[in-house]
Amino acid sequence: MDTQPGQPASHVLRRGTMAQPKGTVILAYSGGLDTSCILVWLKEQGYDVVAYLANIGQKEDFEAARKKALALGAKKVYVEDVCREFVEEFIWPAVQANAVYEDRYLLGTALARPCIARGLVGVAQKEGARHVAHGATGKGNDQVRFELTCYALCPSIKVVAPWRLPEFYQRFPGRRELMDYAQKHGIPVPVTPQTPWSMDENLMHISYEAGILENPKNPAPPGLYTKTCDPATSPDTPDVLEIEFEKGVPVKVTNVGDGTVRRSALELFMYLNDIAGKHGVGRIDIVENRFVGMKSRGIYETPAGTILYHAHLDIEAFTMDREVRKIKQGLSLKFSELVYNGFWHSPEGEFLRHCIARSQQAVAGTVRLSVFKGHVSILGRASPCSLYNEELVSMNVQGDYEPADATGFININSLRLKEYHRLQSKVTAKQAE
Amino acid sequence: MDTQPGQPASHVLRRGTMAQPKGTVILAYSGGLDTSCILVWLKEQGYDVVAYLANIGQKEDFEAARKKALALGAKKVYVEDVCREFVEEFIWPAVQANAVYEDRYLLGTALARPCIARGLVGVAQKEGARHVAHGATGKGNDQVRFELTCYALCPSIKVVAPWRLPEFYQRFPGRRELMDYAQKHGIPVPVTPQTPWSMDENLMHISYEAGILENPKNPAPPGLYTKTCDPATSPDTPDVLEIEFEKGVPVKVTNVGDGTVRRSALELFMYLNDIAGKHGVGRIDIVENRFVGMKSRGIYETPAGTILYHAHLDIEAFTMDREVRKIKQGLSLKFSELVYNGFWHSPEGEFLRHCIARSQQAVAGTVRLSVFKGHVSILGRASPCSLYNEELVSMNVQGDYEPADATGFININSLRLKEYHRLQSKVTAKQAE
Amino acid sequence: MDTQPGQPASHVLRRGTMAQPKGTVILAYSGGLDTSCILVWLKEQGYDVVAYLANIGQKEDFEAARKKALALGAKKVYVEDVCREFVEEFIWPAVQANAVYEDRYLLGTALARPCIARGLVGVAQKEGARHVAHGATGKGNDQVRFELTCYALCPSIKVVAPWRLPEFYQRFPGRRELMDYAQKHGIPVPVTPQTPWSMDENLMHISYEAGILENPKNPAPPGLYTKTCDPATSPDTPDVLEIEFEKGVPVKVTNVGDGTVRRSALELFMYLNDIAGKHGVGRIDIVENRFVGMKSRGIYETPAGTILYHAHLDIEAFTMDREVRKIKQGLSLKFSELVYNGFWHSPEGEFLRHCIARSQQAVAGTVRLSVFKGHVSILGRASPCSLYNEELVSMNVQGDYEPADATGFININSLRLKEYHRLQSKVTAKQAE
Amino acid sequence: MDTQPGQPASHVLRRGTMAQPKGTVILAYSGGLDTSCILVWLKEQGYDVVAYLANIGQKEDFEAARKKALALGAKKVYVEDVCREFVEEFIWPAVQANAVYEDRYLLGTALARPCIARGLVGVAQKEGARHVAHGATGKGNDQVRFELTCYALCPSIKVVAPWRLPEFYQRFPGRRELMDYAQKHGIPVPVTPQTPWSMDENLMHISYEAGILENPKNPAPPGLYTKTCDPATSPDTPDVLEIEFEKGVPVKVTNVGDGTVRRSALELFMYLNDIAGKHGVGRIDIVENRFVGMKSRGIYETPAGTILYHAHLDIEAFTMDREVRKIKQGLSLKFSELVYNGFWHSPEGEFLRHCIARSQQAVAGTVRLSVFKGHVSILGRASPCSLYNEELVSMNVQGDYEPADATGFININSLRLKEYHRLQSKVTAKQAE
Repeated sequence: MDTQPGQPASHVLRRGTMAQPKGTVILAYSGGLDTSCILVWLKEQGYDVVAYLANIGQKEDFEAARKKALALGAKKVYVEDVCREFVEEFIWPAVQANAVYEDRYLLGTALARPCIARGLVGVAQKEGARHVAHGATGKGNDQVRFELTCYALCPSIKVVAPWRLPEFYQRFPGRRELMDYAQKHGIPVPVTPQTPWSMDENLMHISYEAGILENPKNPAPPGLYTKTCDPATSPDTPDVLEIEFEKGVPVKVTNVGDGTVRRSALELFMYLNDIAGKHGVGRIDIVENRFVGMKSRGIYETPAGTILYHAHLDIEAFTMDREVRKIKQGLSLKFSELVYNGFWHSPEGEFLRHCIARSQQAVAGTVRLSVFKGHVSILGRASPCSLYNEELVSMNVQGDYEPADATGFININSLRLKEYHRLQSKVTAKQAE
Repeated sequence: MDTQPGQPASHVLRRGTMAQPKGTVILAYSGGLDTSCILVWLKEQGYDVVAYLANIGQKEDFEAARKKALALGAKKVYVEDVCREFVEEFIWPAVQANAVYEDRYLLGTALARPCIARGLVGVAQKEGARHVAHGATGKGNDQVRFELTCYALCPSIKVVAPWRLPEFYQRFPGRRELMDYAQKHGIPVPVTPQTPWSMDENLMHISYEAGILENPKNPAPPGLYTKTCDPATSPDTPDVLEIEFEKGVPVKVTNVGDGTVRRSALELFMYLNDIAGKHGVGRIDIVENRFVGMKSRGIYETPAGTILYHAHLDIEAFTMDREVRKIKQGLSLKFSELVYNGFWHSPEGEFLRHCIARSQQAVAGTVRLSVFKGHVSILGRASPCSLYNEELVSMNVQGDYEPADATGFININSLRLKEYHRLQSKVTAKQAE
Repeated sequence: MDTQPGQPASHVLRRGTMAQPKGTVILAYSGGLDTSCILVWLKEQGYDVVAYLANIGQKEDFEAARKKALALGAKKVYVEDVCREFVEEFIWPAVQANAVYEDRYLLGTALARPCIARGLVGVAQKEGARHVAHGATGKGNDQVRFELTCYALCPSIKVVAPWRLPEFYQRFPGRRELMDYAQKHGIPVPVTPQTPWSMDENLMHISYEAGILENPKNPAPPGLYTKTCDPATSPDTPDVLEIEFEKGVPVKVTNVGDGTVRRSALELFMYLNDIAGKHGVGRIDIVENRFVGMKSRGIYETPAGTILYHAHLDIEAFTMDREVRKIKQGLSLKFSELVYNGFWHSPEGEFLRHCIARSQQAVAGTVRLSVFKGHVSILGRASPCSLYNEELVSMNVQGDYEPADATGFININSLRLKEYHRLQSKVTAKQAE
Repeated sequence: MDTQPGQPASHVLRRGTMAQPKGTVILAYSGGLDTSCILVWLKEQGYDVVAYLANIGQKEDFEAARKKALALGAKKVYVEDVCREFVEEFIWPAVQANAVYEDRYLLGTALARPCIARGLVGVAQKEGARHVAHGATGKGNDQVRFELTCYALCPSIKVVAPWRLPEFYQRFPGRRELMDYAQKHGIPVPVTPQTPWSMDENLMHISYEAGILENPKNPAPPGLYTKTCDPATSPDTPDVLEIEFEKGVPVKVTNVGDGTVRRSALELFMYLNDIAGKHGVGRIDIVENRFVGMKSRGIYETPAGTILYHAHLDIEAFTMDREVRKIKQGLSLKFSELVYNGFWHSPEGEFLRHCIARSQQAVAGTVRLSVFKGHVSILGRASPCSLYNEELVSMNVQGDYEPADATGFININSLRLKEYHRLQSKVTAKQAE
């Protein structure tokens, strides 16, 4: 019984190891088997463990997790709801950027990491702790994202990453050893059989990786998806939405069918998750390049993010000058890459967010779209800030546009081509001699 | 003397105008009302008109069009089937490039233009003609694409673009005047009522623009689409395909369900058009930026192109090194822009196609995907050339990967961030003084 | 009523042509032969001409030019000193950007054009004129730069560009015809023989083009240069300067040798012109690509600009984060190109200037350099905002840096290379079979 | 048994340590104190040491170094002259690329590293050795460049980097301890007092770093430079050279003054080193960003490289299409960065070299330049492949160029700007309400 906090487990440990006291460590705790074992192991190593559990939208019984951490010997447990910050401070800049890594991945996990790590560092500073710890593996991106955030915000912090410490990973080469350790130390073991892949979830996104998915030929097994319905059985009628943007971020969602309206960032994002999930929108299966240099295969769901990606692309194209758009597109490519690599908190991250936000000043208006059977279709758009000029483009209106100007435009543009042809002919002629 | 073919119309003309003889012009002829009127008008101006009609996959009765052109007074008519060249020499490089303009448009029209214009120039050279003519409007991209190709391939050619000549466009300010002219000159007028938008079709793509679509808020009306079915009524079971690539282009398509196999470029492309069309895949509704500087709204269908875009992205990510991919992505952005702007035949076009083709040397393997209800879903992939290493990425295999290395990697990557923090703190401290 | 000023010329014209009155035109007047003839010709065409003469640092007797314009019939003459604006609002952003076109040209003419054209438009608006005119030729960049600025700031303005009007350029196919016209209309003809090249000067820069320089093999003739001394005869001792920057712009120049100090933008820029000129710094001879598509050869002098380019590069490298620098470098490439092409006043120009200025917030400190015999040599630098950390880099100090981390950093970076080698070996082996 | 060569030292070692035999290691040996100590230390650790000494153009008595290595116990010594390969296979591609890191550094050291490391790996493969070793420090770029090359060419190789091994660097925290060790083990100690900075030299370049140069404010002390004369005392008359290029690389250098001609890659490069050195050309003093994340200060001399940089820029601008140039410039930026970071042998390095080489196919012709007082001045150029068209650009020739076309060109280009103004006015008006 862990009525006090964490007595029995620590009791066991104390006897076993009696390590040197090492001060307080703040552990990014998920409530799952891995970080529970790490919690106990850190105590074994002589740390006072404070568990930090960010509620970033994952499905989790946070109170149960709190109790579990205390029962395992955590000196203190912080459960912090960061959902709103996650949407407003991390997802919104990504929406403004149309951030997408390697043409397909909307960065759902990559955006969550700096948000969680920022909370972790905040607790470390509050608790005066010199160490933080996390349960990310040694081959992945998340270790990088966590730690770069920690170092960027608090350069003096020390990170304990057990999955990179030989004394840890050699002791737990597989799941079996973890289970054994758990049983030995009174760590509750999941009763449901483990899925043959690993998952990571937040408000924006869930990823499925590893296990049977490591063979890139294997399709996603039926029943894998948790955030979206199967398009095969999803509703036979679309939901039609109107999404209103200001400065490149959504400020209002209206369901044209039933009149539902959502306005606050968090509420409208969750509503879009519902609608997209209902219609099976946001699934991808990709092979991507990790920052540490290997290719990995992931299956992802990003329901609301997928709708917003399409809607924002559309309103941006409608309101942004062509050349600004091109420059901003280049900045967004850089931004997406650095977010993926863990450099959210960095000089270049700050700089790019500033520039991208600047580009969004007039990105405002309403996009109408339909969500249906796994697909988002744009239906139309309107904006008070549009650079679209119906009169100018109309085939039936001459207006100020002088067709003869196009002749000059084309002729001048052809000058280079003609010169090149002239040279090529000369070269060809010479070669023929 | 062109007394035989096309006698009646020319007969009428001769009496009317008796312009100075201006030699031969090769007219890019579509068989429609516009270019038929232009044909007659060019004769009026004193040209001998040779009609050039490229079969680039549009739905058209080419023999009827040939007869029509002759009847209207064309001295000669060329009907040239360029479908295979279009696929192999224009669409394939775009597939290798993942070419997409402004994040959404797969360039279906832009790719067809240089293919048609190349044929036009070929005929001009064969016929010894100094002029070519086309029916593209003065506000659009196609005039640019046509003419830049002509000038690049044959700098001395003269282009007659009636829709940019005041004497033409002032005479035909609207459709009514064209119809009157047609009736007066024995030009057959379409019996079906005109759609309230304009269309342009080829093997890859159809575009719908102008008319009621000029209001960007108006959704595509029911019944507009012609190349793809409505996902609402499309089949309730997906087609699952395997597409095999070599050097970045598809070489074989297998329908896993019924065992259908297609191998040649043209056949497999047409088959993909069928499958995608059946499942409503490839529709977009966008506002884009024209080269001439205005925004325009277009609704497009690109069935096979959409499947290939997704499939190629996948096999490329699987087989191409991360850093090469990043460089190639930048090249493709440039390539897409120049194709859109009409610079297919240009020094930079040549250079980029060469570089992109080089990047595709090892882009080989098979992608499995499902086509269903307007959406393409990747299911898995396999390749003999993959840089994906299942052992390396596996969470269960240590292999040659040393987790401790990641610590050094992260620490070194954090150096800059720590230095930046140091400076920021100094600045902040100073400001606080 | 323009009876008083400029009577004789207009008197002659009136008799000759009696054109329709066309309202007021603001002419960008230089005081030279070309724009003097244009002034008279515009009157001939029926315009009331207001001459606008920007003092942008060129060597010119502005009062004489004013009188000349009035004598030729200008209704009014504006002589506006825009030197300070030119330095602060046009040159400074270019310094912040390290703006350089095609790796060599510091954009001296390109920066002056929008500054002059802005003044021109200002006068047009003040005078309620609907037309502006300029004397730039039809093959050059300056016509584009002038006019794009005019249209960007006042879309309704009409530009009269005589050198592109057949009625003008066919009348004046060569210099001789201009001279004849001048003599006929009482336009003073230069007494000194014309240089066999053309020149354009402002505070930052002078360009020599055309004439005997059109042969790109011909070296600059002795005596061509006017803003800088010949390094062969320049002083045998260097001047050593310290240039202090704040937010990426120079705020103080100190001559270490004689203690001279300059602080205001205009004064320090002029002082740098003196020093650089004295030591022959800032000469280049290049072939560049014009926006209109042709290559042209120019010989340029940019004395102060060259010193500032080197000094700013140095202080920026010292104070700016590596990754921010890389992104900013890309933005500067775009910026330089658009400035060259005439898009200073444009959405993308505004956007880039904002982003680049943002990057300069901490670009502060002092650069010491020597100016000698045509060359600028950086001697050292210091800054309160530097990201340079002497302790970190020192070979003799371990500090917080853990050499073992570099092992992990290298190993992780090598992962991709090893995988690529693995694949290449497989491919090679297969080919060998 | 290595009793013969290197007996005394090994004799001492054997007695002292008797480490486990570890097989053969190939040591990148320079002949200096550091790598001599490392040689002995490696033997202490149980390695059989084969010394590899690349002659890459540094000033060195290679025979003395060979004897020294043998005397210190090297089992074998390879002295390999790689100068020609260095010029043709490493410097030439950099010349084609106009490779320059952070706008100033011509990459002299970065280019030499993969050349040396390739030789090292070649010897390792020949000797069947599983280890290589080098004396690069743990904070620098060279360790990365050496090792990435080794891993790229031979993934199974093991690298021993003593300056990153605590057992080594803690034993030798400063120069004194190295000297003591040297004396104890019979390693000859340099008789001349050490410069208060470190140097690294090859045929292209010498770098001066560390020591008193670590203070970025300190100017280069008199007497530091070794490859170039002081411009203050360099000759008072320039050398005028003509450099002929084919496919972007120099194939002939002619001294216009004395008629000297050099043709082979190595000879002409050495000749350019002489001329540039004589006139003090190629010195820079910069702060740069290392790949490992810190800023460092370096003073460099790159005599021939500086001449070739300027000459190649000029001939390239003369012969390459504007748009190809722009794309190639972007590729070169990437290339320079990857060369700096050590990725010469990498998938992206291969790809970029291929693309850049392709861009150079028509970069041919002759550049005339003067070398004088630290500065290279371009005087003129000629080429059979130029895209420069004197007739087209001439102010006096109308030719095929239609000035009226420029009007259309400008008007069309202004369309976007006018639309933007329209929107801005609307926004401003609204805000004013």
